[in-house]
Amino acid sequence: MKKSKAIVSASLDMVVPFYDLDPMRIVWHGNYVKYIEDARCELLNKIGYNYNAMEESGYMWPIVDMRLKYVASAKFGSRIRIHADLVEYETRIKIDYKIECLDSHKILNKAYTIQVAIDLVNEELQFESPAVFTDKVKAYV
Amino acid sequence: MKKSKAIVSASLDMVVPFYDLDPMRIVWHGNYVKYIEDARCELLNKIGYNYNAMEESGYMWPIVDMRLKYVASAKFGSRIRIHADLVEYETRIKIDYKIECLDSHKILNKAYTIQVAIDLVNEELQFESPAVFTDKVKAYV
Amino acid sequence: MKKSKAIVSASLDMVVPFYDLDPMRIVWHGNYVKYIEDARCELLNKIGYNYNAMEESGYMWPIVDMRLKYVASAKFGSRIRIHADLVEYETRIKIDYKIECLDSHKILNKAYTIQVAIDLVNEELQFESPAVFTDKVKAYV
Amino acid sequence: MKKSKAIVSASLDMVVPFYDLDPMRIVWHGNYVKYIEDARCELLNKIGYNYNAMEESGYMWPIVDMRLKYVASAKFGSRIRIHADLVEYETRIKIDYKIECLDSHKILNKAYTIQVAIDLVNEELQFESPAVFTDKVKAYV
Repeated sequence: MKKSKAIVSASLDMVVPFYDLDPMRIVWHGNYVKYIEDARCELLNKIGYNYNAMEESGYMWPIVDMRLKYVASAKFGSRIRIHADLVEYETRIKIDYKIECLDSHKILNKAYTIQVAIDLVNEELQFESPAVFTDKVKAYV
Repeated sequence: MKKSKAIVSASLDMVVPFYDLDPMRIVWHGNYVKYIEDARCELLNKIGYNYNAMEESGYMWPIVDMRLKYVASAKFGSRIRIHADLVEYETRIKIDYKIECLDSHKILNKAYTIQVAIDLVNEELQFESPAVFTDKVKAYV
Repeated sequence: MKKSKAIVSASLDMVVPFYDLDPMRIVWHGNYVKYIEDARCELLNKIGYNYNAMEESGYMWPIVDMRLKYVASAKFGSRIRIHADLVEYETRIKIDYKIECLDSHKILNKAYTIQVAIDLVNEELQFESPAVFTDKVKAYV
Repeated sequence: MKKSKAIVSASLDMVVPFYDLDPMRIVWHGNYVKYIEDARCELLNKIGYNYNAMEESGYMWPIVDMRLKYVASAKFGSRIRIHADLVEYETRIKIDYKIECLDSHKILNKAYTIQVAIDLVNEELQFESPAVFTDKVKAYV
């Protein structure tokens, strides 16, 4: 996953909860999907286009592609920081993520998600991002 | 929790998945809430009043009270059976649950949930169960 | 659930994440079990007896009884506060919880959990709380 | 994701539960990670190398890379089939997945996971799959 240039960035700190751990005493790999969603919401809030705003604008933006690379493990009580970088927005939303452990300063995970706009009325896939979103990005930048 | 007489009963078998375990290598206590929902859905299907039918009938039925008593632990790969007994339906839905391990024949958990009807239009709480539901119970019994 | 006197209290604020919502656009009832665990961990941290310390002390403390009463619903982005009050500790740990919405100032949920100590070596249930824990509570109070 | 040749295959049927849905009334994208784990466990059971056997053999096999492509959405009560194909095993475990809806016969999701062996004693990454596993694959094939 080559590094793309961030258009908008956000980050979020959290402490790993007990209920996210598996019998190997590390975060179960599927739970990182929640962590990157938390950071994505933080980033979308910044732009003024969170899930509520998406829906009011007449679109939903489902995830169509998601990849996570696991480098090291988070444990109970680990303090972690999730970085989210918006790297594409004109035809779709691509966000890159990096999760680091604030205790060990190690990178734990690198990920990306891709979302596309779907018109809520006719359920049609949009091949260009709707102006209601791209205008917000341009205004923020 | 004294034993009430079952009006309608259903049960469901499952195998404990890895992702439901916690670092003590037993099912994390909160995951039993999913298991009893699975059995509740099985029971409501039997009566012909599952979540889709509830909504079509103009009501939602949120859980207002839930209690679980944990007697023994389920482990990875344990085969378990969840029993659900409808024990009240005229003013609210009360369902009693019992989870048993099919390997050890031990009872793992006893629980109940209480649901009340709320009119989807005016959001008013119903102090009697709507006829659309009670008729289905009577028809089934 | 009558109100007991709090021996130690803790609270925690959070914002409701998207992935905790259900199709009724409210927090799925089972997810409150995570919220009260977060507040319980906060309280146990205060006393100096978190899950890691429990294990080092030679005991695990499984939940044996849990009840939640749902009064109102949390929505996406709701800011909520979870209060945890330790109300029993000499023979078992009983914690009362109250979840309030910081936006509407409504109480959303009242709950309790009961935990008992089990010796990690012989797996025997302890009918009195081990001194390693009660000493910490007394020291804190 | 080009199609690789399956060395061992397994599949699993399930019905989409209510608690896996999000406010868009479709399965929240992160929950597919559980579905593919269920199918992976089914496949590993077939070979005789499930999570318990892994640990007994002295290795853990964490996921190091995971990708999911979302093509269409599963809804409440959808009957789905998850296919898992072992496509690499000599240096690492690579499994390809395909989730299809048994009601609409549509493909919902394509995914893969990559796992590597780590020695439980010295925590060293294994650059070749341990014989205890490759022997089982060869015996099964």
